[in-house]
Amino acid sequence: MSTLSASQSPVTVVGLGLMGQALAAAFLANGHPTTVWNRSAAKADALVADGATLADSIRSAVEASPLVVVCVSDYDAVHELLDPVGASLAGRTLVNLTTASSTQARETAEWATKIDSAYLDGAILALPQAIGTADATLLYSGPKAAFEEHQAALQALGETGTVYLDEDHGLSALYDMSILSIMWGVLNGFMQGAALLGTANVKATTFATLANTAINVTTDYVSAFAQQIDEGRYPATDATVAIHMGGMEHLVQETVALGVNTELPNLFLDLARRAAADGHANDSYAAMIEQFRKPSI
Amino acid sequence: MSTLSASQSPVTVVGLGLMGQALAAAFLANGHPTTVWNRSAAKADALVADGATLADSIRSAVEASPLVVVCVSDYDAVHELLDPVGASLAGRTLVNLTTASSTQARETAEWATKIDSAYLDGAILALPQAIGTADATLLYSGPKAAFEEHQAALQALGETGTVYLDEDHGLSALYDMSILSIMWGVLNGFMQGAALLGTANVKATTFATLANTAINVTTDYVSAFAQQIDEGRYPATDATVAIHMGGMEHLVQETVALGVNTELPNLFLDLARRAAADGHANDSYAAMIEQFRKPSI
Repeated sequence: MSTLSASQSPVTVVGLGLMGQALAAAFLANGHPTTVWNRSAAKADALVADGATLADSIRSAVEASPLVVVCVSDYDAVHELLDPVGASLAGRTLVNLTTASSTQARETAEWATKIDSAYLDGAILALPQAIGTADATLLYSGPKAAFEEHQAALQALGETGTVYLDEDHGLSALYDMSILSIMWGVLNGFMQGAALLGTANVKATTFATLANTAINVTTDYVSAFAQQIDEGRYPATDATVAIHMGGMEHLVQETVALGVNTELPNLFLDLARRAAADGHANDSYAAMIEQFRKPSI
Repeated sequence: MSTLSASQSPVTVVGLGLMGQALAAAFLANGHPTTVWNRSAAKADALVADGATLADSIRSAVEASPLVVVCVSDYDAVHELLDPVGASLAGRTLVNLTTASSTQARETAEWATKIDSAYLDGAILALPQAIGTADATLLYSGPKAAFEEHQAALQALGETGTVYLDEDHGLSALYDMSILSIMWGVLNGFMQGAALLGTANVKATTFATLANTAINVTTDYVSAFAQQIDEGRYPATDATVAIHMGGMEHLVQETVALGVNTELPNLFLDLARRAAADGHANDSYAAMIEQFRKPSI
């Protein structure tokens, strides 16, 4: 937590689900005069006991602070709540931490422009209990000036993990999904390996040590392949797609023979075979990006 | 490379494809009297010029050294070459670095027992050009005594990356596949994210920085989930399977809306849905192991 200060700027939090409550609590804990609003007012009780002000209407909630943070179930709920008070949002900064798609984020940014509100779309890579701790990462996209104006307040939610991405409002949602894609990729790859080794009674904790070494080594490949992806050329300085395919064929055979799940190995192999069929057999694995860019077959 | 020494033990390398040549070259570079054999003798020319001895038969090759390393195209080739010289292998250690399944490795171990040869099955996690460098990892399984007897020689192939796993001969093949599962999981997850972000003109190199942070963070989850997998209990101390499912639904929607490949996201979601249907909605992601242990639906 930051050092408390009497001069912290006022913040309004709209939506007091588990995440909204955590956001409001973090602002309060950092000394921000915090106004809260929720459709069912009872959700505010604990926060009010800790010093928050419960607004008597969504309008007075919005008008209480230069920074309005909204975190509700979805974007329909955002618009249902905020469309009627558009005039009150004029001249204020709206930070929307509701989970959404990049398209919804961009559409909401257009709406905010019309009502003359500075709009930041955000994505929370943390559970409610991690808000305000070093484990919380929050990504923001939209006008950089608005982010910088409120950065100090936003850091109450994740002091080291407050990341500004880009003027494109869609990017916080896209980065959120992209980072989760990787995390699920890692975790499912680990599960696949743990299931294979489990057939030989190797403990998952035994495997985890070598697994984590492999995971860390892979970051070097990510960096190298990212460079090739940006250049649009994939010269193989290590294993070619064809070599990877050979390994994937072994993996599929092994999963079939040992009776564990074959779906992830089969998908790996299918994608690599398509890359080879597209002429990338002798290219590096970076050439696989072209398969991921295509709509599914 | 190790310091050269006149007292290095003799080694025989059978099979001089690109990998076999690299193995023989690494033994030579470390001062081991090295005998080589290949079906087409011309492959030995460069090695002979560097000091290797070309055997005039597979039998004399095997009989030249207490340690015989074989690396050929597949296990049929291993048996075709070595079955006729079983008597000569008696009392020697055979290290098989040919890529194979765990079942093949275990079967070959039974054959080696019958001919009274100490047998180590190995897996090479490196390309030929990395053999003998810090980038090479080689995994060995089989009798520990045989490994320890020849460890010094085997370290010529990967000084820091020479790993003994277990008495179970199948484990080098299984670990190989399990580690590759993770690496493909990471790389494909990264490609999925890079494809998504590419629709907003975000460079892969820009994404790679945050991606690699996420990859490194995920190792903490791997360690924690491995513990739960071994305990067979999956209490959720962070996001539940249901929460992951919600995120995966967003990922699928985003990939559909942006016209990139949906197969990996759909597989993530399918697996999570099945875990939830099996009663694991409120468990941690570690519960997913049960889906990976099942034959595919």
